[in-house]
Amino acid sequence: MQVVQHYQQLFEAYRKNHPFNGSPEGLYAPVNYIMGLGGKRLRPAMALMGYGLFQDEVQPALPLAYAVEIFHNFTLVHDDIMDAAPLRRGKPTVHALYNANTAILSGDVMLISAYEYLMQVQPGEKLPQVLSIFNRVAREVCEGQQMDMDFESRRDVTIPEYLRMIELKTAVLIAGCLAIGAAAAGALPADIDRLYQFGRWSGVAFQLQDDILDTFGNPEKVGKKIGGDIAQNKKTFLILKALEIAPEPERKRIQELMSDKVTDEATKINEVTSLLTQFGIQEKAAQEKNRFRQMAMKALDEIQCPEARKTPLRELAEALIDREF
Amino acid sequence: MQVVQHYQQLFEAYRKNHPFNGSPEGLYAPVNYIMGLGGKRLRPAMALMGYGLFQDEVQPALPLAYAVEIFHNFTLVHDDIMDAAPLRRGKPTVHALYNANTAILSGDVMLISAYEYLMQVQPGEKLPQVLSIFNRVAREVCEGQQMDMDFESRRDVTIPEYLRMIELKTAVLIAGCLAIGAAAAGALPADIDRLYQFGRWSGVAFQLQDDILDTFGNPEKVGKKIGGDIAQNKKTFLILKALEIAPEPERKRIQELMSDKVTDEATKINEVTSLLTQFGIQEKAAQEKNRFRQMAMKALDEIQCPEARKTPLRELAEALIDREF
Repeated sequence: MQVVQHYQQLFEAYRKNHPFNGSPEGLYAPVNYIMGLGGKRLRPAMALMGYGLFQDEVQPALPLAYAVEIFHNFTLVHDDIMDAAPLRRGKPTVHALYNANTAILSGDVMLISAYEYLMQVQPGEKLPQVLSIFNRVAREVCEGQQMDMDFESRRDVTIPEYLRMIELKTAVLIAGCLAIGAAAAGALPADIDRLYQFGRWSGVAFQLQDDILDTFGNPEKVGKKIGGDIAQNKKTFLILKALEIAPEPERKRIQELMSDKVTDEATKINEVTSLLTQFGIQEKAAQEKNRFRQMAMKALDEIQCPEARKTPLRELAEALIDREF
Repeated sequence: MQVVQHYQQLFEAYRKNHPFNGSPEGLYAPVNYIMGLGGKRLRPAMALMGYGLFQDEVQPALPLAYAVEIFHNFTLVHDDIMDAAPLRRGKPTVHALYNANTAILSGDVMLISAYEYLMQVQPGEKLPQVLSIFNRVAREVCEGQQMDMDFESRRDVTIPEYLRMIELKTAVLIAGCLAIGAAAAGALPADIDRLYQFGRWSGVAFQLQDDILDTFGNPEKVGKKIGGDIAQNKKTFLILKALEIAPEPERKRIQELMSDKVTDEATKINEVTSLLTQFGIQEKAAQEKNRFRQMAMKALDEIQCPEARKTPLRELAEALIDREF
């Protein structure tokens, strides 16, 4: 993971050298606030890694890495308003610290800034290719967020629909970061596409692991309360799979527990978790996760570049897909 | 005004041929709703006029015209949330018809779509120039909206600050539409800049006329209730000028009337209007408006292109600056 850490350090140095200095301050202070809250800087690392597969030096890709991190944080600012979330990374969300209007407008200016940094791609002839990937991904992230909101009021969400939603909401941005890096580095279209597929399937596997950990993780290792998805009636892969295979009485009970009818949180979490265990859902989710992992690794194997350069990317993906932190 | 009408018809045909067909519908239906509400389509006409100064046929600029209209409507969707506005063009606003979350997210996808249409600029080598103008303008529109929101809670707004706010919030987008059209048409940088200045100063003059009409207009011709700005305590040019020149007792009274202390709307509107009249504010605003008009027309005069092609643009600007509708 040395390469990833090196890229994260490079990125942090670049970010600190490029604060949002514009006026009025009321517009830009919230941008500096959210950008300074930290996070794993996974997406910029992915952009640099995509570039690094095809070039020796990743420095020229730093503006692109910054663009994708600004975009990611823009989605967090707007999603947190929509979810009425009070906290992000243990600190107040932008709309909580300032207000919803500021969070809307500062988010808007972040999306515009992401395009400004994308335009710094060198050589400039790669700009149209980089922008088309970015535009498609950005649009799909919005589509994924809308699907997620639509699912809250639907009782008939299918597993393919759920997988598509997490693909759009989470995986395509990871895929897009890698593909943008590769496109800027002059990779062939077929390799850009393979790298995109690698990121896409890794991202789905990574989100499935997130679902598993939210219910079955070790709270100390996961670093948050277990059972949050169940408490919020979120129809993750685990619940949808259980609804698919459980016999009628248990199926009905799961639906009852995962609704506003049952409000006692401990009851909900304990009883749903034991029903999921009864039907072997954790193993089934892990199988599904591994299916996506294999698709991802196959795509990575097929990319035409020095094999040694793929190692950090493979290690990072495996660590994310199997993570217990 | 025949040219303008012709451009508006061209644009409407193009728009109807390019609806938002994506999925999920919950994301795109609000986009089609707001885009179908009408409006004068002033900004796309400006983009086509900017292009038409330097090219015989404006068809190739239609995607750019669409991009700026999508952007303009994106700002309306988000601004209407911030202003808690129930109506837009006599119909429910997006957040009122759907909800605020949908309005945030559909607005976001509109901004991304604007970039998608901008990328269709032909020839492609003009893309970086078109995008840099667009990025700067888009950022400045956000800055103008933030200034406008900041002014609500400030009592020390100066006239230069107010003029800068309306320049950013309204004028730069009109200027940007013209400049993007000219850049795509291959105009020289000096002419793009002159056209930008023409749009910028026309836009400020146009907004000053808007301020004048809101207080002194004929309700039948203006098509809306007179005195809305006063009722909402908006510190327009008229109020700021009066606060600058009125002697102390009247100055204090204006400040008192333009606050939440006085809630009777008729009293506010009548008394403030008569104080403005007493200090000749309508004439002073008209003088200021004419100062900006002259700056605009001087910039237009200096553009190197066939003189006859400037006529529709000059006529449109004059009509907007002197409009009584």
